[in-house]
Formats: sequence, structure tokens, C-alpha cells
Amino acid sequence: MSRPDHRVCDELRPVRIDRNFVSAAPGSVRISAGNTSVLCTASFVDSVPNWMKEQEGGWLTAEYRMLPCSTVPRCERKDRPDGRASEIQRLIGRSLRSVVDLKRIGPRTIYIDCDVLQADGGTRTLAITGAWIALYDAIKSLQAVLPPMELLLRDSVAAVSVGLIDGQARLDLCYLEDVAADVDMNLVMTGSGRFIEIQGTGEHATFSGEQLDHMLALGRKGIEQLTAMQPKLKGVS
Amino acid sequence: MSRPDHRVCDELRPVRIDRNFVSAAPGSVRISAGNTSVLCTASFVDSVPNWMKEQEGGWLTAEYRMLPCSTVPRCERKDRPDGRASEIQRLIGRSLRSVVDLKRIGPRTIYIDCDVLQADGGTRTLAITGAWIALYDAIKSLQAVLPPMELLLRDSVAAVSVGLIDGQARLDLCYLEDVAADVDMNLVMTGSGRFIEIQGTGEHATFSGEQLDHMLALGRKGIEQLTAMQPKLKGVS
Amino acid sequence: MSRPDHRVCDELRPVRIDRNFVSAAPGSVRISAGNTSVLCTASFVDSVPNWMKEQEGGWLTAEYRMLPCSTVPRCERKDRPDGRASEIQRLIGRSLRSVVDLKRIGPRTIYIDCDVLQADGGTRTLAITGAWIALYDAIKSLQAVLPPMELLLRDSVAAVSVGLIDGQARLDLCYLEDVAADVDMNLVMTGSGRFIEIQGTGEHATFSGEQLDHMLALGRKGIEQLTAMQPKLKGVS
Amino acid sequence: MSRPDHRVCDELRPVRIDRNFVSAAPGSVRISAGNTSVLCTASFVDSVPNWMKEQEGGWLTAEYRMLPCSTVPRCERKDRPDGRASEIQRLIGRSLRSVVDLKRIGPRTIYIDCDVLQADGGTRTLAITGAWIALYDAIKSLQAVLPPMELLLRDSVAAVSVGLIDGQARLDLCYLEDVAADVDMNLVMTGSGRFIEIQGTGEHATFSGEQLDHMLALGRKGIEQLTAMQPKLKGVS
Amino acid sequence: MSRPDHRVCDELRPVRIDRNFVSAAPGSVRISAGNTSVLCTASFVDSVPNWMKEQEGGWLTAEYRMLPCSTVPRCERKDRPDGRASEIQRLIGRSLRSVVDLKRIGPRTIYIDCDVLQADGGTRTLAITGAWIALYDAIKSLQAVLPPMELLLRDSVAAVSVGLIDGQARLDLCYLEDVAADVDMNLVMTGSGRFIEIQGTGEHATFSGEQLDHMLALGRKGIEQLTAMQPKLKGVS
Amino acid sequence: MSRPDHRVCDELRPVRIDRNFVSAAPGSVRISAGNTSVLCTASFVDSVPNWMKEQEGGWLTAEYRMLPCSTVPRCERKDRPDGRASEIQRLIGRSLRSVVDLKRIGPRTIYIDCDVLQADGGTRTLAITGAWIALYDAIKSLQAVLPPMELLLRDSVAAVSVGLIDGQARLDLCYLEDVAADVDMNLVMTGSGRFIEIQGTGEHATFSGEQLDHMLALGRKGIEQLTAMQPKLKGVS
Repeated sequence: MSRPDHRVCDELRPVRIDRNFVSAAPGSVRISAGNTSVLCTASFVDSVPNWMKEQEGGWLTAEYRMLPCSTVPRCERKDRPDGRASEIQRLIGRSLRSVVDLKRIGPRTIYIDCDVLQADGGTRTLAITGAWIALYDAIKSLQAVLPPMELLLRDSVAAVSVGLIDGQARLDLCYLEDVAADVDMNLVMTGSGRFIEIQGTGEHATFSGEQLDHMLALGRKGIEQLTAMQPKLKGVS
Repeated sequence: MSRPDHRVCDELRPVRIDRNFVSAAPGSVRISAGNTSVLCTASFVDSVPNWMKEQEGGWLTAEYRMLPCSTVPRCERKDRPDGRASEIQRLIGRSLRSVVDLKRIGPRTIYIDCDVLQADGGTRTLAITGAWIALYDAIKSLQAVLPPMELLLRDSVAAVSVGLIDGQARLDLCYLEDVAADVDMNLVMTGSGRFIEIQGTGEHATFSGEQLDHMLALGRKGIEQLTAMQPKLKGVS
Repeated sequence: MSRPDHRVCDELRPVRIDRNFVSAAPGSVRISAGNTSVLCTASFVDSVPNWMKEQEGGWLTAEYRMLPCSTVPRCERKDRPDGRASEIQRLIGRSLRSVVDLKRIGPRTIYIDCDVLQADGGTRTLAITGAWIALYDAIKSLQAVLPPMELLLRDSVAAVSVGLIDGQARLDLCYLEDVAADVDMNLVMTGSGRFIEIQGTGEHATFSGEQLDHMLALGRKGIEQLTAMQPKLKGVS
Repeated sequence: MSRPDHRVCDELRPVRIDRNFVSAAPGSVRISAGNTSVLCTASFVDSVPNWMKEQEGGWLTAEYRMLPCSTVPRCERKDRPDGRASEIQRLIGRSLRSVVDLKRIGPRTIYIDCDVLQADGGTRTLAITGAWIALYDAIKSLQAVLPPMELLLRDSVAAVSVGLIDGQARLDLCYLEDVAADVDMNLVMTGSGRFIEIQGTGEHATFSGEQLDHMLALGRKGIEQLTAMQPKLKGVS
Repeated sequence: MSRPDHRVCDELRPVRIDRNFVSAAPGSVRISAGNTSVLCTASFVDSVPNWMKEQEGGWLTAEYRMLPCSTVPRCERKDRPDGRASEIQRLIGRSLRSVVDLKRIGPRTIYIDCDVLQADGGTRTLAITGAWIALYDAIKSLQAVLPPMELLLRDSVAAVSVGLIDGQARLDLCYLEDVAADVDMNLVMTGSGRFIEIQGTGEHATFSGEQLDHMLALGRKGIEQLTAMQPKLKGVS
Repeated sequence: MSRPDHRVCDELRPVRIDRNFVSAAPGSVRISAGNTSVLCTASFVDSVPNWMKEQEGGWLTAEYRMLPCSTVPRCERKDRPDGRASEIQRLIGRSLRSVVDLKRIGPRTIYIDCDVLQADGGTRTLAITGAWIALYDAIKSLQAVLPPMELLLRDSVAAVSVGLIDGQARLDLCYLEDVAADVDMNLVMTGSGRFIEIQGTGEHATFSGEQLDHMLALGRKGIEQLTAMQPKLKGVS
């Protein structure tokens, strides 16, 4: 069974990264993989959530939303993040927090905004990969007022989806594949090859331990390639 | 008193128009004027609002929102359009409806989505100017299923802001000027030079009839230049 | 084409003004024009909005709502002000703020409440004309604790609607005319004849510069008559 | 201990009833008792709630709200009825439904709107007394399309408050008494002297069976006087 | 006409009381009467509502909700308490506040949570009877940090429903009777026999003074029996 | 480092299962593991979500909420499911849908309600384990109107948490361990040993492939023990 865009099973879609995409945020990236495209920005705000008021350091939070024009047919604007968007923005936030030393940024909140411009599958993992670059760029452009990059960012973060379709594992699903997949897995890893998050879901089917191993191997390979496209952190191997 | 970007009083900011900016909507335009930049899309949805159910033809509605990363400092996402956004999206909708023959589009709704990417003053007027192009492109790309363009679109629409600062009228205010203006006027006109909407507001000062006339003259001139950058409608002079 | 109530084109509806209409607010006016009737009150509250906390002086804000029984058929109560009500209450607030010296009222908020008792067209302009009287009466009844009237109120404010029906300009539209109008204009002016706000909208038609001038002339005339019915401010000509 | 307005214990406040107060609703009454004043309207809407769709006849529902200018200091507009308003409007609705034959009005909903213009205690009971008159007037003005009054309205309805202050029972409490009362009772009765609703609450104190009997006697007397001021239903004694 | 569960008119349903039902709240009771079952808990929170900030002592508030699985068919979760739930939780709160000396508990709020596990009529009165036991247990388990029980709790509280069906008064209605009742009365009384709250409602019928007296007598009898099942307060007769 | 309750690393907490816990739902289970306790019910409702209207078969959805009294200190009732609750109820729904043949249940929705009575870690996994039993019991009690159990339920479902604390993997974390864990993993599996969902999250640390394998092994062992406590499905090995 061939893939809609004729890729082989372990092949990523072509990736394009446009840094400094908007001028108001210190870090802003439009990242595209095939027909999926997300605008990721990182901004620093001089306050922290109420529950953190008595603690040292700062916080990082993420918001994820799809623009109405990102899908066919047009999707409605949501009053609040719905269940799916809420899950995704919590995932983005957790993933980035795992590599940032928030104790060192002072009483500030880093806002990661991920607005999907075009949706063709894999928006959440692409958002994570792009958001890390936006975060890197924001820290870099604020080096005058922040501690050195190498003290703030422990590692890079990238993410990719893997799926099981008719028993076959595939890397980086597009929308048509996403809908057809029996099992859908999202993998978030550091540049140095450690896991941050594994989310494997079999709504239409269950999966064996062997299939799990195969999907993990594909995902690892994809993440290595994405990491290579991200800016390189000094002192992280 | 010189302008922050050294323009003369009746000079527009440089305009850039990127058509076909996203792939999912049949019409999509990123329009920029100086540092203000708006993503405008036009989509057709096969249903009409409830109150129209028993009427012939279709409807056109607009939504306007600022992306959080469009301002410094970051602005919060609004659950719903606030008072300002609500006013603006009603204005955009009215302005475009005045030149479309909605009776001819069948039971469909045209959604105009205007998402501000960068905000430096004049987002609502720029959104109108860009949205008309997105609408034109959407109709053009759907000519196979819609009546001919010249039956659907009676005229083009463009808009611009004018302000009064220390008694001096200025065209196309940037944010710094917007904040300082005593009187703020938004002008929406057709390509053939007729008025669609005039909104002149003097919160910090009142204005005389003579000053009104001067602002109207400046606005007309700017709109003529914007019209020249838009696609040309056949049979409209 | 004669008007539903047989007025000539430049004739206002009969106006009735009942001051001190309710006892709890220091200024309260029931103002009627033909079958349109609005209860306007002005109250002082000893606090300011959060965004003003660090600034000198106070604020004035307006709320506008239609009572369910003001229309046939009954209109539903809105959970929040909808788009239209939101636009109107922002207009009322801006119009009155343009003549009040809020720096002098201390850390207080003036609330203008406009509740429509009967709706037959022109509720927003009638609300402005009545609200100014309520504001005047509130300031007068609080002269013991406020600066002198002439330091607080720079001018009077009145408003009226004008419309274009089949090419003919008419003053002070009733509901039937409002619905039929091609162009709808609301004019807010000071007692001394300066403009505060012009809102001209052509949803069903566009309009020429000449038609604009004619509508402005009619509106000016109507506002002069309304001003004559309002209390007279000392020292304003 | 004398009362703030020097009434004796079993004396009502002076009542004023203005019928046909607004023109859009078929029944509309401004009813005042001392400084409390409520605008009560009754309107017929040609639809029924969803849960009634399969049932014969119609429904009656009530809405109660306080205008912001009805109290000192100004009270905030509520987005939705809060707990108190919700209780009150359910009480008003139940009370009137007990005397209307809703089976006979066809698939219609009668809306009773009670908007408090001035609040000085006893707004809910005054609203019931006034709403019944508005309902009577609405039915009367729609006799051309409705069954005869005597088939629709079984009886009249009036209501009054009674309280216990320092062990002393008092009729028709004003706000100052309401706040001071140990026990607060609202009584709704028919013109023919039967009970519709008794709500006796002792938040600050409990009360004995004897005290209950005394309060009921006072309330009955007040309701008889209110009934005498309402229009008389034919055939009800 | 016999009752669905063959009780005589003045007979309560069998009552079961499980104290210490959950471990996190200092007082927690599952109380059942026939097929109605409510989980009542009492917790102390170290803060008070904003409006109490400047006052001495604390507050007691109640929340009432039905679990979706408590009815056939399943009832939907409510975003907020609806009108009915709002009325009920206000009643529960008032009833308990009438016997607690809140001045003595310091700046704390006692939360009473009543979650209906099974609904077969009489949930609000059963909730009150159970909530008082939860409150008693909570105070008892916190005697180390609170004033002595006899200073905090003046009396016990119990509640029961009475109804009029076809002219016959019945005690403690189950759901089938509740729906059929012409008059529905809820009675809240202290252990020493004084009234806290009387709510008698005749939506489907009105009732005479004699019928009122009969219902009150039945209710008193039921409350005496419920009081006997509650823990005994020292020094209250 | 010993565990707070002195278990060994691969030891579950003691489990208690009370079936038929409430009478209104056809399946209802109170399941406890140590101090965590959840009320799980399964109900059939005779309608389907709008988006399913044109499809064959039915749907299964889950709602998860914590009762306010389930934690110390008391947690506030949420108006709507917050981000966390939304994630959890989506997980519960997906997990159960993976083993139910919804095509065969007709146009019905199965509601799974999980209300946490006591929260001491692991509420979401315990809810899944208990909800499957409630679902089994509901199907069993409705066998008269549903297809045979073995056609509807393909397999059983159980879930457990695993964590990494100071590099050590532990099964079935209690709250104190949950808070201290560097990595938190939730595992949902079928009775026959296949994966339904893996969610491994390292907010405070990242984890290696070897650690992942160890956690998976512990989880599998726990799920086997939970499966043994659930009712046995005929024909599933």
C-alpha cells in the first residue's frame, strides 16, 4: 500500500523553516512539513501565574489554536480551547519545560503560541519542533537581559508522529493517513536521544509489544533528522 | 512635526500583497502596510445563518482577531470577540456586503477571516482592503460553480484611516500616531469613488466642518492609490 | 414619498423629557421621541477600572440594553451585550467623555445606563441626548462634593440620525424608515456646533460626496433643536 | 420601636398603579409601593419551550432583573440571573401559572418581565401583584384572539411580605426593615383567599408556631387590601 | 389511594445513615431514605468570601448537585447550578447557618457539599438532615482547633417534605408522589421544635388555611423522628 | 528509599470493588485502590451526537470529575472540565471504545461517568479499570435488548500507573509518589495483553529507552493482576 504522497515508510515530509516570521515576538518561526504549516512564537511576559507567586523563577506555557482557514471545510473559531486543543497545548508546554531551567529566568512567563496556518496532519508534533526554534531565537535575541543560552536550555526538543496502518508502521502521517491509522503515536525526544513524552493510542485497534518497538524505532529516526535541522546548542551532544 | 516614519501627511505606508498565502481557503492574502500585516481569507460554507433560512440567496460574514504575538507586549487571546473586535468585524462584513450580490450565491455563507499578524495601526482598514482581494480570488477560483465575477461583484472596496494630530490631518496612521490622534477617522470607499462607510471619532477633541472636509480629501486620495493595487474588475470604472 | 408619521424631511419627532425619573441615581431622565423612549441614568461609583489605577482622575463608561418589552415581538434578554449593543454603548461612552474633564472628578467612575423602554428607531442617538441631561443633573445634584459644573462639563452633547431613502435625505428616522434606508448616518455634535462623531453606513447602497453633505446639513439642524431642549451650560455659546 | 416611615405594624405602604406604561407589550404596569417601583409587562410569544413541544397548550414564564440604577450604590448588571434573581423569577412564574388555564392559550408562551426601577424592599411580592395586572391587561387586549377572560384566569393573585423584628410582626417591610428582620416571610394568595405560596425563612433566628400564625394573619390582611386595588375578575368571589 | 410503597400517610421512608463515608472531609455522611441517597460532606477552608473580609468570624455555604447517574434516564451535568439547584443550595446554606455561631469559627468558610447519588424525591430535605450530621462530625473531629461544640452549634436541624395529593396530606413524598402532588411543602425545623424555613408551593392547586395546618402537623411529626436519629447535642432539649 | 505505604516496587495497592453501587444506572461500581476511590457508572441513552447522526451504530463517551470533598484541602467544583479533566475523560472514552463494537448497539450513546470520591493518586487509571466493569455490568443487565455480550465486548480493559522516582521504577503511585516522580506513565491494556494506550511524560526529567522498557514491564504485571479481579469475558484468553 503506497502512501498518498509516495513517500517510503520511514521518510519525513519536506520541512521548511522560516525564522523571524513576525516582528513583534522575539522568536517567531513558520515551520512547514508538506502541507502542514504552523506559526510558532515565543514571547516573555513580566509576570507569573498566581500559583507561582511565592516560588522562585518563572514559568512556560503554551497556547495552540487552528486558524479557521487552516482546514477544508473552514473550521469554526472556538470560544475556548476544546478538549483536543487543550491536550495539545498542555503537551507543548510540558515538552518545552523539560529542557528549560525556569528557575533562572526570573519572575517571567514564556508564552509559546502555536497557530496552525495549514492543517494536513501532524500539527502538534510540528508545533513542538517549531516552538523549540522560536524559543531558542527568543532567548538568543534577549541575551542582553537573560542568563547565557547554555544555562537556560539544557537540550533541544523535536517531535514526530508515527502510525500503524494495516499493520504497517509509517513515519510522519499526513491527514489522510492519520484518519486511516489504527494506532497513532506521538513521540517527543531531546536532541541527545532521550524520551520526553510517548503517547500511543489505539482507538481503532490495539497493538502488540513488537509493534510498539517498531514504531519507536521509526520515530527515533525521524526525530534525529528534525534535530539536525534545528539550531545547534553549544555543549550538547 | 514630522511623522515617526518620515512620511509626508498625504503619504501611504508601503504596501505589500501576497496572494494565495495559505492553501486551504480559495482566497487568501497576506497584506502589509509598513509594520502592520493581516492574513485575510475568504471561504464558502454551504449553509446560511438561521435567520436567513427562508430567504433567497446567501450571506457574508467576517471575523477579526489579533494573534497574541501581533503586539508588544503580547496580547491575550480573547475567548470571544471583545467590544473592539466585534465592532471591527461588523464593519468588515458590512463593507464587503455592499458590493456583493448575495442573492446570486445560493444558500452559502462567505466567511471572511482577518487575523492580524503584526499590529502597527490601521489593522481594520488594511483588513478591508486585503479581504476584498481574498474575496475576489475566492470567487475567481470558484468560477466553475458560481455565476460570473461581474454579476457577483459590483465594485471593489478599499479602506484607509485618517487622523487629526495637533490640528494637522494625516493619512494612514501608524500606532504611535493613532494613540496621539485627537480625531480618528476610518473611510471605506468603492473603486468608483463612492462612500460605503465613514466613521469619524473625536474622543480627545471635537472637530469642525472644515477639518472634516480636509480629512475626507486625504482619505479619498489614499483609497485611490490602494484601489490601483487591487485586481481590476471588468466593467467598473 | 411621504413619511409614516407625515413629518417633512427635516422635522424631528416630538420630544418629551422627564427628569428625576427614578430616585436612586443622582441623574435620571426618561427621554422620548415619538414612540422611542429611553431611561438614561448617571451614577458615580467610588472606584476606577483596573487599567486606570495608576492614573490621575476618573472614568466614564456607558451601558446600553433594550428591555425585552421594548419591541414587538418581545426581544430576548442577552447574557452579554451583543455586537450591536456593544457598539452602541462604546459610542455613548466616547461621546460623553469628549466633553467631561475626567481628570477633575477624582478616582470615580461615572456610569451611564441607558435602558430602552420603547424602541421605534433612533434609540442610540436619543440615548446620547438623554444621557447628557442625566449627566448634567447628576453633576448638579453632587455640586457639594464635586468641582463646579463649568469646570467639569465643557459643552453639551446631542445626537440624531439621518438616512437616505430612495435618494431622499430624512431626519430622525423611525423604525420603518430605518429598515428601508439605503444609508444610515448617526451624528453626534456639541452644543457649540462641533463634531464628536460621524457614522455613516451604506449597507444597501453607497453614497456620493454630495449626498453626504446634504445628510450632514439635515443632522446639524436637528441637533440645534435638541440642544435647545437641554439645560443650558453657563459660559458655553 | 417605630417603623422608619412611621407606619403601624399592619399597614401597607401607599400603592400606585400605572397601567399601559409602555406601548409594545399588550399588558404593562408600573407598580409602586413607597419607594419600591417595578415595571411589569406581559407578552405573548408564538412558541413554547422545547420540553412542551408534544403537549397541548402553552406556558408562562417570568424574568426578573434589577436595573443598575435601582439601588444606591448602583448594582452591576448580571450576565445571567444570579441565585437570588433565579429564585424570584421562578416564584413569579409559579404564582401566576397557578391561576391561568395554560391548556387554553394554544402553543404560546406568556412572558412576564419584571424590571425593578427602584428597590426599597419587597420587590418580589410587588412584582407578583403588578405582574398579575399586566397579565390581566394583556389577556383583555387580546380578547379578539384568545378565549374569554373568565376561562383563562381562574382568580387574581397578590403577594406581600411580612417580617419579625425583635419579636414583633410587621407588614410590607421596607429595605431597612428587611435587613433587620429575624424572620422574613413572603405570602402569595389568590383574590379568593387561598394560599399559592408561603416562604418563611429564619436565617437570623428561628420562630415558633404561634409567631407563624401571627405573621400569616398580617399577610392575609395586606393581600386583601392589594386585591381590592387590582382589576376585578367577573365571577370570582 | 394507597402510596406507591404502601406507607401510611404519616410514615417516613426507612432511613439509613453511614457516617465517615469518605476520608478527605472531616465530616461525611451518606444518608438514604428509601431509594433517595445523598452524600453530604462538611469541610473547613481557611478563607472567607470577599464581602466578609472586613467582618469578624466566618461563613457557611452549601453546594448541591445531582450526579448524572442519580436518575433514570441519566441527567446531564450542568455547567453551573441551574435555577433549581441554586435554590436548593441557598436553602441548605441558610438552614444550617441558623444554628451555627459563625462569629466563633474565625476567618474560615465551612463548605457543605451535597451530591445526590440516587434521586427518588425529597433530595433537598434529606440533604439538609444529612448535612447537619456531617457538620456535627466535622466540628467534633476538629475540636482540637475549634471552640467547644456546644458554643458553635445551638441546635440540630432536620427537614422533611409534605404534600397534598387529591386533598390528602402525605409525609416524605417519593418521586412518583412528588410529580402528582398539588401542593408541595418543605419544612426545616430545629431539634427543639422551632421553625427555620417553610416553603409551601401550590403550582397545580391552591390550598386553604386548614390544609396548611394539617401539612404542618405531619411535617412536625416526621422531623421529630429524624431528629431522634441524629447525634444528640448536649444541653439542647 | 521505601514507599510511603511500605509496598515493594512492583506491588499494587489493595483493590476493592463494590458492584451495583447505585440503583439508577444499569452498571455502577465503586472501585478503590488504597485511599483512592472512584464511582464509575455506565448508562445507555437513546440518542447519538449530532456528528454521528448519519452513521450506523452508536457512541461511547466518558465524563470525569472530582467531587469537591475528594481532596484535602477541598477542591473547587469546576464549571466545565478543565484541561486535566478533559484529557482524562477523553482517555477513558478512547480506552473503552477500543474494545466495544459500537456498530452493534444501535443509535444509542453509552455514558461512562467517573466521579472521584477519594483522590490519592492514580484516579484516571483506576477509573478505567472500574469503568470497564460498570460497562460489563450494564451490558449484562440489558441483555434482553442488546446483542449478546460476546459480540459487543471484544476484550476487557484495565489500566495502571508507573513512575520513575530517583531512577527507580514503581508500580501504582500514590499521591505523594506522583508528586515526586520524575517520569509518570499511564498504561492501558486489554485482558489479552495488547496495548491500548501508553502515555509516558517526563516533565521533571527525560528518560532512556532502557528505563522505558522497565516501566512497561512493571505496568504489564500490574495490569495482569487487575484483569484477574475483573469479571471474565467468555471466549477471550
